[in-house]
Amino acid sequence: MSLPALHGVVPILVTPFHEDGRIDEESLANLVEFNIAAGVHGLGVALGSEVFKFNEAERAQVTRVVIEAAAKRVPIVINSGAAGTDLAVFYSKAAEAAGADMLMVIPPSFMPVSPDEIFDYYKAIDAAVGIPVILQDVPQAPISPGLALKIAAECPNVKYIKVETLPVTSKVAAMAEQAGDRLTIFGGAGGSYFIEELRRGALGTMPFCSQPADFVAVWDAFRKGDQATARRHFDATIMAINRLAVQGGDIFYFIHKQILVRRGVIRTAVVRSPTTAIDRITAREIEELIAEIVPVATPFRQLAA
Amino acid sequence: MSLPALHGVVPILVTPFHEDGRIDEESLANLVEFNIAAGVHGLGVALGSEVFKFNEAERAQVTRVVIEAAAKRVPIVINSGAAGTDLAVFYSKAAEAAGADMLMVIPPSFMPVSPDEIFDYYKAIDAAVGIPVILQDVPQAPISPGLALKIAAECPNVKYIKVETLPVTSKVAAMAEQAGDRLTIFGGAGGSYFIEELRRGALGTMPFCSQPADFVAVWDAFRKGDQATARRHFDATIMAINRLAVQGGDIFYFIHKQILVRRGVIRTAVVRSPTTAIDRITAREIEELIAEIVPVATPFRQLAA
Amino acid sequence: MSLPALHGVVPILVTPFHEDGRIDEESLANLVEFNIAAGVHGLGVALGSEVFKFNEAERAQVTRVVIEAAAKRVPIVINSGAAGTDLAVFYSKAAEAAGADMLMVIPPSFMPVSPDEIFDYYKAIDAAVGIPVILQDVPQAPISPGLALKIAAECPNVKYIKVETLPVTSKVAAMAEQAGDRLTIFGGAGGSYFIEELRRGALGTMPFCSQPADFVAVWDAFRKGDQATARRHFDATIMAINRLAVQGGDIFYFIHKQILVRRGVIRTAVVRSPTTAIDRITAREIEELIAEIVPVATPFRQLAA
Amino acid sequence: MSLPALHGVVPILVTPFHEDGRIDEESLANLVEFNIAAGVHGLGVALGSEVFKFNEAERAQVTRVVIEAAAKRVPIVINSGAAGTDLAVFYSKAAEAAGADMLMVIPPSFMPVSPDEIFDYYKAIDAAVGIPVILQDVPQAPISPGLALKIAAECPNVKYIKVETLPVTSKVAAMAEQAGDRLTIFGGAGGSYFIEELRRGALGTMPFCSQPADFVAVWDAFRKGDQATARRHFDATIMAINRLAVQGGDIFYFIHKQILVRRGVIRTAVVRSPTTAIDRITAREIEELIAEIVPVATPFRQLAA
Repeated sequence: MSLPALHGVVPILVTPFHEDGRIDEESLANLVEFNIAAGVHGLGVALGSEVFKFNEAERAQVTRVVIEAAAKRVPIVINSGAAGTDLAVFYSKAAEAAGADMLMVIPPSFMPVSPDEIFDYYKAIDAAVGIPVILQDVPQAPISPGLALKIAAECPNVKYIKVETLPVTSKVAAMAEQAGDRLTIFGGAGGSYFIEELRRGALGTMPFCSQPADFVAVWDAFRKGDQATARRHFDATIMAINRLAVQGGDIFYFIHKQILVRRGVIRTAVVRSPTTAIDRITAREIEELIAEIVPVATPFRQLAA
Repeated sequence: MSLPALHGVVPILVTPFHEDGRIDEESLANLVEFNIAAGVHGLGVALGSEVFKFNEAERAQVTRVVIEAAAKRVPIVINSGAAGTDLAVFYSKAAEAAGADMLMVIPPSFMPVSPDEIFDYYKAIDAAVGIPVILQDVPQAPISPGLALKIAAECPNVKYIKVETLPVTSKVAAMAEQAGDRLTIFGGAGGSYFIEELRRGALGTMPFCSQPADFVAVWDAFRKGDQATARRHFDATIMAINRLAVQGGDIFYFIHKQILVRRGVIRTAVVRSPTTAIDRITAREIEELIAEIVPVATPFRQLAA
Repeated sequence: MSLPALHGVVPILVTPFHEDGRIDEESLANLVEFNIAAGVHGLGVALGSEVFKFNEAERAQVTRVVIEAAAKRVPIVINSGAAGTDLAVFYSKAAEAAGADMLMVIPPSFMPVSPDEIFDYYKAIDAAVGIPVILQDVPQAPISPGLALKIAAECPNVKYIKVETLPVTSKVAAMAEQAGDRLTIFGGAGGSYFIEELRRGALGTMPFCSQPADFVAVWDAFRKGDQATARRHFDATIMAINRLAVQGGDIFYFIHKQILVRRGVIRTAVVRSPTTAIDRITAREIEELIAEIVPVATPFRQLAA
Repeated sequence: MSLPALHGVVPILVTPFHEDGRIDEESLANLVEFNIAAGVHGLGVALGSEVFKFNEAERAQVTRVVIEAAAKRVPIVINSGAAGTDLAVFYSKAAEAAGADMLMVIPPSFMPVSPDEIFDYYKAIDAAVGIPVILQDVPQAPISPGLALKIAAECPNVKYIKVETLPVTSKVAAMAEQAGDRLTIFGGAGGSYFIEELRRGALGTMPFCSQPADFVAVWDAFRKGDQATARRHFDATIMAINRLAVQGGDIFYFIHKQILVRRGVIRTAVVRSPTTAIDRITAREIEELIAEIVPVATPFRQLAA
């Protein structure tokens, strides 16, 4: 089976900041380079990029820097979901105009909405753009396989779905079984169940962007049929980080940024407020863990201080 | 006791749209006029105005039209809360620059945050502006009386709190008892417990904007000590509308806009998608109810068709 | 159209307690009598009876007293849902053995469960008993029309569904349209939308038990086609009580018990702990409201002091 | 520092069932033996034992079998929380009469309750029994450090708190800092953050009961100051199981029971309905994982077939 345009390891980029909170464009471009050098198959800007803390100029800035840095070497996915249909269309058209290759769209969930309203929302976005759209099935706004199929049937641009409702592995299995002919399925959940998702029919995942080479190694081994190597690599490199990252709150931002600082990819581990405060013990634990995963901290590229 | 700068009936304005979804500026200005003519003590732009469905240009547009139409006759409150601290500061400064008299700020709740982070969020906003700030205590991000006092102690601009956690009446009572010396308390919840809130120490409410004269009549009677008249007026005019409006979903938008159409204040009852679909029986029920409340539909002003 | 075995006004009984917290059997029997005298069409023991605070002996005691007091004059519905299938079967068989006419069964929601598991749960209960079963569609465990039909198709005893997800009126409409041929639909939500539910195809409601004559009057007027009288009666007697009762927390227990004390039906308004504490202002408000609704407090029957 | 009466590794026992769903007393006694042989410091019966699916006779049966099998070699903790105060007192007294050494009590959360009501609930339980009580701080009913201290100050039997709100590690740290002088702190969350919790002041954890020797090895290494060994052991034996177990739903029941079947400790992996259905791929994955963790399946004791 030939792979669809988007597949494999598509990390969601964190947004690096200067100490004063401004977006660090040079670090962001470096982060794109670091991931492409690791062999990723695409890159995304989404909730993991803190987009919900950005004003429109900042959204445009991050989108521009990422698209320029990637320079068409891998497809770029831009999150354009919103609490209102018009606003999601507005974000979607802006991303397309800026050169995004695909859109990833979370359903509205600020007010409770019915499946019919979610359908109309995707229909409006689909009609407004000319690039592929990825549905997002998230706990706060789940998309059942039936609804996914109904949307796919009426929306020619909708070609993918990222599954993140719980329990993830059985949700991926159900989606693959019922909608796998029509939609390419991606896993999410920080990549914690990457191998399990692939076994159930997913053709890719959208993990964090601090360990791209490790995710690519797992993908390559799995595709060659060598699940034992895939598992060994996953357990040795990804599992310990993810155990800490998924413990609740938004501590994952800090952990992944800290890894990237250690690797010399970005300048600071600043996370925009509000964010879980990191106490001293936690900071030390994360440092120790990173020291194990990244024993020698050779800078990926030289960033000006 | 002399009343604080903001008190009494401060309706949250709905945003009128043209049939094609664009903001109807003329209807919005007319709506401001209608409310001021009814004797309201202030006006607000907030969640009830569908601000979470707006892009920045639309936010600015609504703010500008309302401030111009009000022309300093009553204080204008602009909602400037956001999922990120920087973004809330950005919205707050924009509102102040546009001429807002006060800000109303909901705590961040997109990711789970601790009381300390909520405190820091308000501190940053307080430091960035020079106009009064209203805290919002809502179910998805409650502010305990203790936290309210801590914020008020460190943030000189924070002078008010709107209480909307459940059960509303006992929450207003607890807030008044513990924080009433330092913060002026407003009720919310669509005005359903207006009289109860006043009895417990609230000095105002922020209801919808379709029945301003009725809310003002209740306020006036209550202030004169005539609770029986306040109650009778409330029961006869407000209660039946609110019973339907609070049944879940976001049907309240449609109901209040429909009343305003009937009254000739705004042109359409269009609510931006996504919104609860109104079935035929519901539409008829709302119409019948409105016919009782507004027996003769004399247009408030003449809007061009 | 002839009415099904269960229809009309089927109040859920509160459980009266002595001051020391023991179940007051005499008051409970009196409450049954009071409701039957008012013309109700059935009676229920459910969440509104505080059953989740009872041990097995107390469940059996309440069931026994109610069935004996009703003496087959109206059908008795007993709640027998549980967090586990075996436990729900255990409660269901106990209720049937005690003489219950019907069972009302809430889906399990203590742990997240899928529609398939909810289906299996009802199938096990259906197979274990020989009396009609009422499904419950509640916010914490919704039953879609599709799932309701699937359950009804395989479970011959399942003949009713009580709809309480939000927004109630459109959920009743959707359920009636899709499952109304196979299942008789009841409204819930404390009777706040009784008339709206009847207009959409519901054939009854399960309100609280403190105003049975008023609910029966609304039902009778509606059935005669006199909606104006139904509405007037509803607005004059039920709406003001319900406005206070639905404000959040579990204050409704106290309000309805207090009405029944005033009416001389039960001895005390004791609610089992934990329950929302009633502050002095609230207590006085409830008292005033009740004094309007029940101006003269003639005891329904003579209870020994 | 001398350790409190309860400390270290206190696994929560699963309840083994026969194929037909009846409690398998012999397997349960064997499971107690298996855990004591592994060196655990106590044993518990709680949510992880499916107690919320039991009737009173089954609760009593499990309590009796566990207490008899343990024969005073380790302290036995029995969960006695409930949705009502009287019911929790009823369960607590029954557990004490049956010989439980301690009680673990979850706050009521079926209806929303205030901190004052949670306080009263614990006060009633404390007054009714003469054995130590463990508070439970869970996501659906959190207990803040301040509330924990207030309860501890008035309830002499309350000596412990199990912390399970998110993010777990910082909640344990906060509780230890604020309430650690008065209450001994236990971790929970399936033991996923055992070492992190110990570093922050916890003196024990309540994990599942399928890997007791591994948890004891981690505890022993940590107490000797050898954190590297503790970490290595944890990563090699516990982390991979927990990754699968915490993915959502209640799949953890099946996983831990399956490990115990493989180890010859219990007869079946039957989980009482409703429970997450295990698809074929998941079943195989769990089997493979267990085969790695438990390479040779030597039965712990001989159970009759």
